[in-house]
Amino acid sequence: MKTDKGTVFERLSPPPRLLMGPGPITAYPRVLQAMSHQLIGQYDPAMTEYMNQTMALYRQIFKTDNSATLLVDGTARAGIEAVLVSLIEPGDTVLVPIFGRFGHLLAEIAERAGAHVVSFEVEWGTVVPDSMIENAIIQHRPKLLALVQGDTSTTMLQPLENIGEICQKHGVLFYSDATASIVGNEFETDAWQLDAVSVGLQKCLGGPSGSAPVTLSEQAVAHIRARKHIEAGIRVDSHEFGQASRIRSNYFDLGMILDYWGEERLNHHTEATSMLFAARECAQLNLEEGLDAVIARHRRAGQAMASGLTAMGLALFGDQNHKMHNVVGVVIPPNVNGEAIRSAMLQQFNIEIGTSFGPLHGKIWRIGTMGYNARLDTVLSTLLALEALLLQAGVPIKSGAAYQCALATYNEGA
Amino acid sequence: MKTDKGTVFERLSPPPRLLMGPGPITAYPRVLQAMSHQLIGQYDPAMTEYMNQTMALYRQIFKTDNSATLLVDGTARAGIEAVLVSLIEPGDTVLVPIFGRFGHLLAEIAERAGAHVVSFEVEWGTVVPDSMIENAIIQHRPKLLALVQGDTSTTMLQPLENIGEICQKHGVLFYSDATASIVGNEFETDAWQLDAVSVGLQKCLGGPSGSAPVTLSEQAVAHIRARKHIEAGIRVDSHEFGQASRIRSNYFDLGMILDYWGEERLNHHTEATSMLFAARECAQLNLEEGLDAVIARHRRAGQAMASGLTAMGLALFGDQNHKMHNVVGVVIPPNVNGEAIRSAMLQQFNIEIGTSFGPLHGKIWRIGTMGYNARLDTVLSTLLALEALLLQAGVPIKSGAAYQCALATYNEGA
Repeated sequence: MKTDKGTVFERLSPPPRLLMGPGPITAYPRVLQAMSHQLIGQYDPAMTEYMNQTMALYRQIFKTDNSATLLVDGTARAGIEAVLVSLIEPGDTVLVPIFGRFGHLLAEIAERAGAHVVSFEVEWGTVVPDSMIENAIIQHRPKLLALVQGDTSTTMLQPLENIGEICQKHGVLFYSDATASIVGNEFETDAWQLDAVSVGLQKCLGGPSGSAPVTLSEQAVAHIRARKHIEAGIRVDSHEFGQASRIRSNYFDLGMILDYWGEERLNHHTEATSMLFAARECAQLNLEEGLDAVIARHRRAGQAMASGLTAMGLALFGDQNHKMHNVVGVVIPPNVNGEAIRSAMLQQFNIEIGTSFGPLHGKIWRIGTMGYNARLDTVLSTLLALEALLLQAGVPIKSGAAYQCALATYNEGA
Repeated sequence: MKTDKGTVFERLSPPPRLLMGPGPITAYPRVLQAMSHQLIGQYDPAMTEYMNQTMALYRQIFKTDNSATLLVDGTARAGIEAVLVSLIEPGDTVLVPIFGRFGHLLAEIAERAGAHVVSFEVEWGTVVPDSMIENAIIQHRPKLLALVQGDTSTTMLQPLENIGEICQKHGVLFYSDATASIVGNEFETDAWQLDAVSVGLQKCLGGPSGSAPVTLSEQAVAHIRARKHIEAGIRVDSHEFGQASRIRSNYFDLGMILDYWGEERLNHHTEATSMLFAARECAQLNLEEGLDAVIARHRRAGQAMASGLTAMGLALFGDQNHKMHNVVGVVIPPNVNGEAIRSAMLQQFNIEIGTSFGPLHGKIWRIGTMGYNARLDTVLSTLLALEALLLQAGVPIKSGAAYQCALATYNEGA
């Protein structure tokens, strides 16, 4: 609409999609409602209490006692960069085992933070053996190991349970990005001896992108505190600075963010209150359901989806023993235009499934069953729609098999 | 509430505050409603259309034809850092005139980006004369001038209208942070020859913190394009890289963010959809009202507030000829505990007013009339509450004068 005051558009009215891709996914309605609450000031006692509650909730999500558990105001990628730029001093060696696109991302962010990055890559669709990681640690003596837990580009879930011990043995800090996997799969910060973890809301946690929960061990905090710095303009004489090099980013300086979330409440950014409300609600509702129940629900929905796709005669991508519960890669059948099917899913059924990146681009679809959408009805509707479109495209499929197998698998998983 | 599943808290229920501080402020209800819409996928045609609309809307807010107008997913400070880290190569000289806390912030962020920062500071409560800026440019030959328009720490509004021409004459890039001032005061990106501008939603735009609209001139884009880089994992052979040094941040690499918002739609972060909905709605409703009308409303509410405070016998802080319309500094009367009054405002009246930073800490309150709260009723209620508390504290005030003067001033401003 063009008026004399300028061009404005129609009222916001997003189409009612069912988001069955690798994320973002359909948010829990309660999380959306949480964001519609009116704002409060950033030092309001009610606000600081909500910040403290959010810390307590994410300690449970991360399964940690780490005091330093907070939100970075940005997407999951902001959490990654905050951890890496805060822990890495220029010249530090960082080891990044790569099994998909997000390993490349960790390597790239570490490089930009000034690290000497050592990386190696395994075939997409597999995970990295513990021994390869230990050997690389012995060979390169990194300060930090950066390892994705769940890489949505391949759907693989990297086993982490033995890596922390290896890192401890060799004096290496251990960081994992668990954005794609958290609460859809087992994750144990303290039991697995992680020093830093970052995630986002837009996968199994069931919220919108835009807030990145992060947790840091005491050892990680000590590294960051050694680089302590306080801005001119809010600095007072009693503030002491660290001896190590200043963190290269102000926005991602986790030391300053800790001072903001901590008792001193030292001003940093203006907290993104609506996103904090969303993050808090995501944690609340997952903890109300219970983490074990949430993971079980993701396992059950994921197994039902995989069995339905297999029954349809489609091949699944990658090592199925190391797949995340919450997303599956499906090989696009020969002579089928993958993008045309995706587009028809969206146009005819309002269902979104995912394409893929890099070497897998055009070769697989990625179908997620995450958060609010880890349900029977979403699995069945997605399978029926895909079946109808593949039949239409001339792919020989036994009609009805997907529905029957998915339903049976779902019921077995009860 | 402690259950066998963990500790969860009461349902979210923020108190009904009236936010009359320097920001964040009470959001327009329409903006909060916009955030409660269900999510859509990041490459959904509906989503990319909303992204394009958001670009078109912010071109009008910024008064620019810049194609490169987009959102950075983070708070206002994220927008500042994205501009500075993308434009500054390590070793570049950056000139930062300082007239309050946020000038220090620009200097600090530029330093961390590797700049050789030249700064000078004028007394808080004043603004920087054009001639001082030109002289410093001649002396130091910076690549970039970084200058805050409205610094909430002092309430001052730096005149920018002649600075662009000075920068052009000397071949200097011109960046301004207009977070605190945009749509509350005149701002002209193209007419004032700015190369980069960043803002946030949480002041006069009337939304929550967490999204940072940014605009870049063609010249600024050329500097960024010379540093072009594409991540491994999504890179293809036809992608060309720039010759200049790679930007030090991945998250804040405006070149990659431009590729994400541009026609290639090259994957970067997962767009913070709910914050995009909020940012779009902020721009929509301000443009529907009309920017001239919005600025006039801020002027009128701000004048009414200032006249009421003066009538109460309180002194205003700083050069009133260079004050932002949307916030005023009030000298705390002698023998009054400023924090006790602020606390009572909040506890008894649910009204938040602001404290201050650095050299002004404990000396002034800051009272805002911004966005949704730039209204008569908010001004009058705030004045009456403050008057009651100051009378209670024994400050000799002529009761009723503030109300009468504020109302008269408001009516004159019609």
